[in-house]
Amino acid sequence: MERGTDYNRMDIDELNRQYQALQEKYEGFKSRGMSLDMSRGKPCPEQLELSRGMLDILSSEDSLKAMDGTDCLNYGGIDGIPEAKQLFAQMLEVGASEILVGGNSSLTMMHDALSRAMLHGVYGSATPWGKLPKVKLLCPSPGYDRHFAICELLGIEMIAVDMLPDGPDMDAVERLVREDDSIKGIWCVPKYSNPEGITYSDETVDRLAGMKTKASDFRIMWDDAYTVHHLTTKPDRLKNILEACKKAGNPDRAFIFASTSKITFPSAGVAVLASSEANLNFIRKQLSVQTIGPDKINQLRHVRFLQNMDVLQAHMEKHAAIIKPKFDIVLNKLESELGGKNIASWIKPNGGYFLSLNTLDGCAKEVVRLAAEAGVTLTKAGATYPYGSDPRDRNIRIAPTFPSAEELETAIDVLCVCVQLASIKKVLAS
Amino acid sequence: MERGTDYNRMDIDELNRQYQALQEKYEGFKSRGMSLDMSRGKPCPEQLELSRGMLDILSSEDSLKAMDGTDCLNYGGIDGIPEAKQLFAQMLEVGASEILVGGNSSLTMMHDALSRAMLHGVYGSATPWGKLPKVKLLCPSPGYDRHFAICELLGIEMIAVDMLPDGPDMDAVERLVREDDSIKGIWCVPKYSNPEGITYSDETVDRLAGMKTKASDFRIMWDDAYTVHHLTTKPDRLKNILEACKKAGNPDRAFIFASTSKITFPSAGVAVLASSEANLNFIRKQLSVQTIGPDKINQLRHVRFLQNMDVLQAHMEKHAAIIKPKFDIVLNKLESELGGKNIASWIKPNGGYFLSLNTLDGCAKEVVRLAAEAGVTLTKAGATYPYGSDPRDRNIRIAPTFPSAEELETAIDVLCVCVQLASIKKVLAS
Repeated sequence: MERGTDYNRMDIDELNRQYQALQEKYEGFKSRGMSLDMSRGKPCPEQLELSRGMLDILSSEDSLKAMDGTDCLNYGGIDGIPEAKQLFAQMLEVGASEILVGGNSSLTMMHDALSRAMLHGVYGSATPWGKLPKVKLLCPSPGYDRHFAICELLGIEMIAVDMLPDGPDMDAVERLVREDDSIKGIWCVPKYSNPEGITYSDETVDRLAGMKTKASDFRIMWDDAYTVHHLTTKPDRLKNILEACKKAGNPDRAFIFASTSKITFPSAGVAVLASSEANLNFIRKQLSVQTIGPDKINQLRHVRFLQNMDVLQAHMEKHAAIIKPKFDIVLNKLESELGGKNIASWIKPNGGYFLSLNTLDGCAKEVVRLAAEAGVTLTKAGATYPYGSDPRDRNIRIAPTFPSAEELETAIDVLCVCVQLASIKKVLAS
Repeated sequence: MERGTDYNRMDIDELNRQYQALQEKYEGFKSRGMSLDMSRGKPCPEQLELSRGMLDILSSEDSLKAMDGTDCLNYGGIDGIPEAKQLFAQMLEVGASEILVGGNSSLTMMHDALSRAMLHGVYGSATPWGKLPKVKLLCPSPGYDRHFAICELLGIEMIAVDMLPDGPDMDAVERLVREDDSIKGIWCVPKYSNPEGITYSDETVDRLAGMKTKASDFRIMWDDAYTVHHLTTKPDRLKNILEACKKAGNPDRAFIFASTSKITFPSAGVAVLASSEANLNFIRKQLSVQTIGPDKINQLRHVRFLQNMDVLQAHMEKHAAIIKPKFDIVLNKLESELGGKNIASWIKPNGGYFLSLNTLDGCAKEVVRLAAEAGVTLTKAGATYPYGSDPRDRNIRIAPTFPSAEELETAIDVLCVCVQLASIKKVLAS
């Protein structure tokens, strides 16, 4: 594929001509009155079809007893049925006593974990976090906007830390947590990270598990949302954080979150929390006041449908077969339209739900604005940073799974024109 | 039916003879090695069968679009699908814009409402409740132990208020809330109350809605758990609290909670919160950070199964046909074994899940202990009062729905023997 010319090497006339041509193209898109949404990581309808069978998996004829005899229709049990614990413990490579299976939303589990920490502290806390003058969380960025929203809601101060190719900048992380006891934790999407698709290296995992923290009740919020969401046949391997924490002598440091929202149904999945037994015992006490227990029938549905890790992996391959071509469309377009022009960079992810595009500094907001005017909704510029503020105004999250291939082609065409328009303006102004 | 002799009028010899006879009966029960649980208000297996059809109501062939076009399988919508709002708004006699449909547990909604109040305040709060030196809630007692557990967990001080035949002692309530701005709310189970089965009078509802409260952000926690759970063909009528609050000029005072846990499945029901639009708008903002939205498929299942209020009412009549005979067993036994003896009193409820038995002062713990030794588990004595402490040690909650009729007969036989044993000891000691 022929690559474009470096915009920084073009002279002003060339740039202006290029701008005119792009502007015409842009006006063409605008006149089509499109309405394409690429803002959220939603499975597409074809992906949802893969799990339709789960709607038939239980019938009124079936026994609805869990393997321990619990009637899944009635009250009882606040941390999940044993067979669900078994399955998801395998998925996360933890023990069946190290997992708690809940409702339909891992986001709720994360919110509630921090909300409980503010109100009651975590296992081993001397003081509820909310009673302290200040609570801070490290936020490797770009990261997941909904994590940041939880912090904002709870009044937890966010400290952005750069993401490097193998995870958060651990030198910075180690320095910060060693010095400041108000830093109580760190957000991590350790595998196929949101938005960059990066998987943390073993060294990163070990450093997170072993680092000295001034706060004795420091917690790693390990959002393993994409643990089985591979896009290649050679999946990334993520080192087991719970094991690493145990080995490092910090057995209670990690909360692992995951869900089947993007395995079965986003609306009606099953969410899990894995952690040390001490952490789970502490949490169960509060949970037994908060709830009469999770929907056990939906857990049973999941276990009967997903069965075991082999069936689950085969199911995930069907997801990959649907969305991998969409990632390829984006990557090919980015390469053909923006490659070689020295105005944007991106990473090819091996899994997950997102692509992350970095423009020239100071261009992201303008690109998102231009795209919106042409009918393409992107995730708000800045959303991938704490307080919605990207210090270099360059990161744009691309969510390619929901639109059809055709819509995606158009949307990325629009995006690429917008990136070029904004870049030329930037280059001309500098 | 012949009634017993007043124990207070028996002489010591008569009482001792009676005690011996009862003790023999008691030992007979003990030797049977029974294990009967009457501690929790759980539907029995036959009740669960009534809703089995709901497991087949959706199939993979069906459209899973809500009436507004929302795909119930995918992300989207944080406060329930429109048809679920419609149905449950009818059930609670509120507007469709005054309701929010959530997950499987109204207890979670209540916990979260207070947890949010502590962390962020409620609509109109000057300060999050948790930042105030003290927060108190009024607890009409006997009441629901799980309400009290939420207060204990959140560090909310509980003030017991007596229950009268038409609701809480409103003279006491009005006096307390007028004087103390740290009293931020009141727990109410206004219809077929837990445990007494009392329904609040119109006057009580109006006084709650209209009373002057020193706290400007006072909230009524209106747990309308048994709103359609009638035991007679002449159901109690409860005055609409939301209307009453509006009329009284306190439109944001009430949070109404309900669920289908005891309509369909305890484990997989649908919970709702009804309140003013201002309250719901305030809550939705926080909810959108806490969750990706409730299980919309389960909401659709409920709407397709329960359809409308006529079908729902007919369904509830089937519940009543199963559990009414159980209430009758208890009431008949209590009358035949304890009637006329002046050692116990109870109220005949028109609905709900419980009967409340008051023994002579100082006897409840002993009765529950004796029953447990004979293999009958009752709700812990004191559980119906804040901090598990019944000041007169006399209230025992009876949950008759789960055991079979045969088990229930035996369990109440045991209970009645235990009440008499404890009463004679008490009378002899005084």
